[in-house]
Amino acid sequence: MEKVAVLGAGSWGTALAMVLHQNGHEVRLWTHDEDHAKRINKTHQNSDYLNNIQLPQDLVAYSDLTKAIDQVSAIVLVLPTKAIRPVCQQLKGVLTHQVTLIHGTKGIEPDTFKRVSEMIEEELPKDLYGEVVVLSGPSHAEEVSVFQPTTVSATSSDVAKSVHTQDLFMNERFRVYTNQDVLGVELGGALKNIIALGAGISDGLGYGDNAKAALVTRGLAEIARLGTAMGADPLTFVGLTGIGDLIVTSTSIHSRNWKTGHMLAKGESLEEILDKMGMVVEGVRTAKAAYQLAEERKIEMPITTGIYKILFEKADPREVVDQLMTRSKRPETDEVHHMLKKHYNDQ
Amino acid sequence: MEKVAVLGAGSWGTALAMVLHQNGHEVRLWTHDEDHAKRINKTHQNSDYLNNIQLPQDLVAYSDLTKAIDQVSAIVLVLPTKAIRPVCQQLKGVLTHQVTLIHGTKGIEPDTFKRVSEMIEEELPKDLYGEVVVLSGPSHAEEVSVFQPTTVSATSSDVAKSVHTQDLFMNERFRVYTNQDVLGVELGGALKNIIALGAGISDGLGYGDNAKAALVTRGLAEIARLGTAMGADPLTFVGLTGIGDLIVTSTSIHSRNWKTGHMLAKGESLEEILDKMGMVVEGVRTAKAAYQLAEERKIEMPITTGIYKILFEKADPREVVDQLMTRSKRPETDEVHHMLKKHYNDQ
Repeated sequence: MEKVAVLGAGSWGTALAMVLHQNGHEVRLWTHDEDHAKRINKTHQNSDYLNNIQLPQDLVAYSDLTKAIDQVSAIVLVLPTKAIRPVCQQLKGVLTHQVTLIHGTKGIEPDTFKRVSEMIEEELPKDLYGEVVVLSGPSHAEEVSVFQPTTVSATSSDVAKSVHTQDLFMNERFRVYTNQDVLGVELGGALKNIIALGAGISDGLGYGDNAKAALVTRGLAEIARLGTAMGADPLTFVGLTGIGDLIVTSTSIHSRNWKTGHMLAKGESLEEILDKMGMVVEGVRTAKAAYQLAEERKIEMPITTGIYKILFEKADPREVVDQLMTRSKRPETDEVHHMLKKHYNDQ
Repeated sequence: MEKVAVLGAGSWGTALAMVLHQNGHEVRLWTHDEDHAKRINKTHQNSDYLNNIQLPQDLVAYSDLTKAIDQVSAIVLVLPTKAIRPVCQQLKGVLTHQVTLIHGTKGIEPDTFKRVSEMIEEELPKDLYGEVVVLSGPSHAEEVSVFQPTTVSATSSDVAKSVHTQDLFMNERFRVYTNQDVLGVELGGALKNIIALGAGISDGLGYGDNAKAALVTRGLAEIARLGTAMGADPLTFVGLTGIGDLIVTSTSIHSRNWKTGHMLAKGESLEEILDKMGMVVEGVRTAKAAYQLAEERKIEMPITTGIYKILFEKADPREVVDQLMTRSKRPETDEVHHMLKKHYNDQ
């Protein structure tokens, strides 16, 4: 049994705390909001995020960070991207012992294009945790909280850290694989939101399963092209954190990215949609970043380019699809072959 | 404009005939059933297979094979697996000029485990067509018949033949890529039905999106392992005919494979289910063949093995899932890395 702190009491943080509790660990669920912590401890529910789920009596919520991390062997950050830096700054003031540091946040920082592990490393001295572990995979929190079978991967360049994470979380309903490609897992997690936007556009135009399967398959190929050019392992993109997560995101109508794409296809402007959502839509910013990176590195990303034009140049979604369908005739895998061959010959 | 014969007037044959007609070709839709041909020509509908779809007046159905193939430049076989040999034998008697021979049939012959192109080559002299072309991809016929965007690949070891096929079919709603890996495309098309069975089992047990995404992702990895060991290109399995088709099949409740899995999970026996279906369920036979091949070649296929045990050894579906979730802890990609590295170093 170990002591573990989960920082962030949203739906995913709460579900992960439940898995850890199920495995016999002493879990502290931290939220910056004192009232939120009190409500959880009083009702043993976190009804703002996970409806009708009963939490164990001894899964305690904290709003005092020092108490939450006292003597823990691992800290799990499950925060919005924008809260990563401030919470790490807080941690820096109170964390005085070594821990395994795990994060379950998918996103890229606007403007700097930094990945979550890079942001953590900039804010928190590495001697407190060594290498970051990323926990990622196809995982609706709602399903994990009712113990539906789920698989994820624990990814770190330090194998001992990912094995520690695997040991903490794995049980008969939550299978954890280890992986070492932090760059690929974090990039894939962010870039897949572009394809989720595209899936929403396709559905919004009234197109069917054939179109969506094509979008996901060809979208994955171009994400892998960009990711591999940036140094990721191409195989990561066909694993749980790549195609696995992409399947779940692109077929879920609950995704903010999907919803945004759907409204764009129905003729609403991006400004109206973002106003209406009142929340960050990660895929919008990621599409811009990916488009810029692809231009810079001269990587062909026709789907991302099409979505960029719909988002930022008011291109008509139906015309973009027509253009994608009628691009010059070509072989399916030549460029990917080239990429993989290079990757394996370089090793 | 070319003359093209489509042999087989089911839903997929009819949809492909419509695409060819749309591209300005003279299309003959052949069925062995004279009454069926008459009904199509009288009503300009094929209501047994494609409900409420109006066919063009000059898309003519034939039951006379000699007339159907007179002066055609291409023949497209879209038949059930079991009709491939008899129709090729008929063709042998009447085909006297060279054609491009295309097939759109997914399946493996029982007992011999022959692929469709192998069956064709055994029945029909190669000098009539050179190399077979396989047309495959994520494509519900119902969507193609109403001109929803669809992508497929035209695969042949003879590039000129796949380019001819691409030229015949491609238009702004039907995008055709070329590919050269016939073995991989035919194997993937058959093996994916095992995963569709598994998706039905998972849904039948009441499991959610997380479980299905894991099944598809990990299932794809083991299909790719077997296929690559048999000589296929690993990349084929992450393309349109692999993951693309798998996404469409595993999320469609219309699939016979999915239905069979669903009923198994609800406690019905395989015998009862097959009786009730009154039709061949390709995935059942393919699961047996894949299990035997994996045993022979000592390839680890835990999902296929689990499904085999449910089908043929009356294993309890819930216990099989528990075993899959609690297998020994392991890395996500090591074995695939090994396989890909070998593939590229061997080239």
